[in-house]
Amino acid sequence: MQRVEPAPQDFDRVLSSMCTEPHPMARQAAERFLATNPGDPATYQEVADLEREAVEMLGTVTGLPDPAGYVTSGGTEANIQAVRIARNRADTDDPNVVVPTHGHFSFWKAADVLGVELRTAPPSDYRADPDVMAELVDADTVLVAGVAGTTEYGYVDPIPELAEVAHSVDALFHVDAAWGGFYLPFSDHRWHFGHAAVDTMTIDPHKVGQAAVPAGGLLARSPELLDELAIDTPYLESTKQVTLTGTRSGAGVASAVAAMEALWPEGYREQYHRSMDNAEWLAAELRERGYDVVEPELPLVAADVSVALVEELRERGWRVAKTEAGELRVVCMPHVTRSMLRSFVADLDWY
Amino acid sequence: MQRVEPAPQDFDRVLSSMCTEPHPMARQAAERFLATNPGDPATYQEVADLEREAVEMLGTVTGLPDPAGYVTSGGTEANIQAVRIARNRADTDDPNVVVPTHGHFSFWKAADVLGVELRTAPPSDYRADPDVMAELVDADTVLVAGVAGTTEYGYVDPIPELAEVAHSVDALFHVDAAWGGFYLPFSDHRWHFGHAAVDTMTIDPHKVGQAAVPAGGLLARSPELLDELAIDTPYLESTKQVTLTGTRSGAGVASAVAAMEALWPEGYREQYHRSMDNAEWLAAELRERGYDVVEPELPLVAADVSVALVEELRERGWRVAKTEAGELRVVCMPHVTRSMLRSFVADLDWY
Repeated sequence: MQRVEPAPQDFDRVLSSMCTEPHPMARQAAERFLATNPGDPATYQEVADLEREAVEMLGTVTGLPDPAGYVTSGGTEANIQAVRIARNRADTDDPNVVVPTHGHFSFWKAADVLGVELRTAPPSDYRADPDVMAELVDADTVLVAGVAGTTEYGYVDPIPELAEVAHSVDALFHVDAAWGGFYLPFSDHRWHFGHAAVDTMTIDPHKVGQAAVPAGGLLARSPELLDELAIDTPYLESTKQVTLTGTRSGAGVASAVAAMEALWPEGYREQYHRSMDNAEWLAAELRERGYDVVEPELPLVAADVSVALVEELRERGWRVAKTEAGELRVVCMPHVTRSMLRSFVADLDWY
Repeated sequence: MQRVEPAPQDFDRVLSSMCTEPHPMARQAAERFLATNPGDPATYQEVADLEREAVEMLGTVTGLPDPAGYVTSGGTEANIQAVRIARNRADTDDPNVVVPTHGHFSFWKAADVLGVELRTAPPSDYRADPDVMAELVDADTVLVAGVAGTTEYGYVDPIPELAEVAHSVDALFHVDAAWGGFYLPFSDHRWHFGHAAVDTMTIDPHKVGQAAVPAGGLLARSPELLDELAIDTPYLESTKQVTLTGTRSGAGVASAVAAMEALWPEGYREQYHRSMDNAEWLAAELRERGYDVVEPELPLVAADVSVALVEELRERGWRVAKTEAGELRVVCMPHVTRSMLRSFVADLDWY
């Protein structure tokens, strides 16, 4: 068999990913902690301490003093676990979860895994409509979820209004800020624990937070919510485990702490403005060329570029994704620079 | 806040972990692929190719030509997914899973997550008893699991006999070889796809396989079994996802391939013999000192050292775990050398 001698991942033409190049300090921390396992905190005590620090810092980012939570494998695990908390907490044999149709596909995965009914509400103007969501909730609703930075358009649902819908039926309220969470603190949006009665939240250091994969985040307003996940752990020195996985990546945990220490808040603020400027620049360039563009609300641009043209761009090496409606979708991550976008637009003009 | 400037993890006194220091080639590959995501295979194509290679190699290790499977976050995800395959495939509203009581705690986690009933069978002489297991299965049994290398004692269940129990009620049969899978090929045990009608298997490169965390493995006899897990994925270029997590670690995948390329089969064979010799040496030393020792079947030693003495050893810096029955448990991983064990026994003698 061939040897593994790859070039490092090249992000020069990646416009499709919600991950990015880790910050240099994050990379260094990941490499140092590669051989640790926060899933076994008594054996790997140093990384267990770092995980507590990571959760504390995520609380600072999301307006939650004394946060409960842990560093997940990513946003999917965090969303599954939020649904699991709500299902386990509720007293119903027929639990349902209400999400906007633009919720991440991990909610569909969660519904299959956890055996809950998923009720989906179509949006208005790319955002969840609280009235439509309110029609779907009932006494068996265990969780209502809103998205702060949707995967397809980067839009922010009306979080305070959705929290009211959730609590009107005594359901928990979850915010999926997996992607948006490190851009939103520098915007005017109302999205976090300090803005509304949010119970649980997904926020991923390994996306805009610039940590190395795998470093997602699940936060909960109180430790009692996390306790809904607890499973006994014989043969570990610790006695309970709330995570979905067992062995976990110390590299991800250490990397998340290192990235947040390096970038919170000023580095993230500068990145937000750079990325937002890039998104607005790209939107304007595309509009000038006659494309319909969804006005960017966070650094993500969707435009009705034809499928044939998207295929041509892919053949030229651009990694670009499409929305379900078939629009071109460009995610302005930290590695996406203005010069990359100029080069992308030049290739678009070439066809 | 303090900066992240840790020393690398020190394994000199770690006798409790089922993870180990990654092989140097595995570490190098992990560092190179730190910024990749096999969960988005169209964007990160190189690591997606490596994942196919990893699964192919795991098939070679486990006697399965043309394996289906993927690189999981670890053994817990693989065990959960095996239960999920079986639950989704079966046609019952009241699914149950039959495992030996010494099954890993991830089966209890799977039961909670997936809403299946867990039926547990006490072992005879540290191994699952097929007759006891057979009494527990019925028409609603979707999965029977056996363990090849138990977490507490390193023992191997009678895999061919348990496969018959499973198939007598048309349930799937799963083997958890998360820890044992890279030791067992060099033993006389009958444990894999080539020895019995195994449907799915957990085998973790990041344990005895000497890959970096996170690199677990789920294997299935046919792609149709994996299809039970498929969820649609809009906005990725790929269209379906069978994994439990979304974004995944390319570092783990690349590291698994690098470790297996470096070590399969001769390096692993040598390691098996070194670790087995160490376990037998430690067992003999402990027996000489009057302790009751469970005869090691794979490189794992359990002995009735008192809880007070285990506490003393922990205070001297040894990371040691206990079985549920309270025995001292020493896992002879690749980083555990004879000189470490001599030093451990010397400390034991000191008290």
